[in-house]
Amino acid sequence: MKYRIFVTLKPGVLDPQGEAIRHALGALGFDGVNSVRQGKMIELDLAETDAAKAETIAREMCERLLANTVIEKFQIEPV
Amino acid sequence: MKYRIFVTLKPGVLDPQGEAIRHALGALGFDGVNSVRQGKMIELDLAETDAAKAETIAREMCERLLANTVIEKFQIEPV
Repeated sequence: MKYRIFVTLKPGVLDPQGEAIRHALGALGFDGVNSVRQGKMIELDLAETDAAKAETIAREMCERLLANTVIEKFQIEPV
Repeated sequence: MKYRIFVTLKPGVLDPQGEAIRHALGALGFDGVNSVRQGKMIELDLAETDAAKAETIAREMCERLLANTVIEKFQIEPV
């Protein structure tokens, strides 16, 4: 099973990386950028073929390693 | 207009970050991980309300700043 995992900062958590991108876009002449938030995307290819089991594994991977659940949320999408 | 932009390494480009994640998952006892690739997700909120114009702007942002098109590809999705 293949999954795409999106890890993003929770709303309200300051995103200095996103802010840096916003400034850089402004410096390049792009106006009208209301906000920029940067997150991570992780493409996982698991050997497990049972969809329910694979998703449970992916969720556990997020909780234990891929996301810092204090400040980040994650979303798992099958590909 | 709001967009989600996915920036990922082109196929064939070595992904040390993804490899590091794969090793770390193995160390945590997760077996059966065929591959891991890490990319970036950028959430853009543009003031432009015309969908066609906004997408053109987003594409130009990707080409000029957000992606290194020599080794990375990008994908733009409206939210």
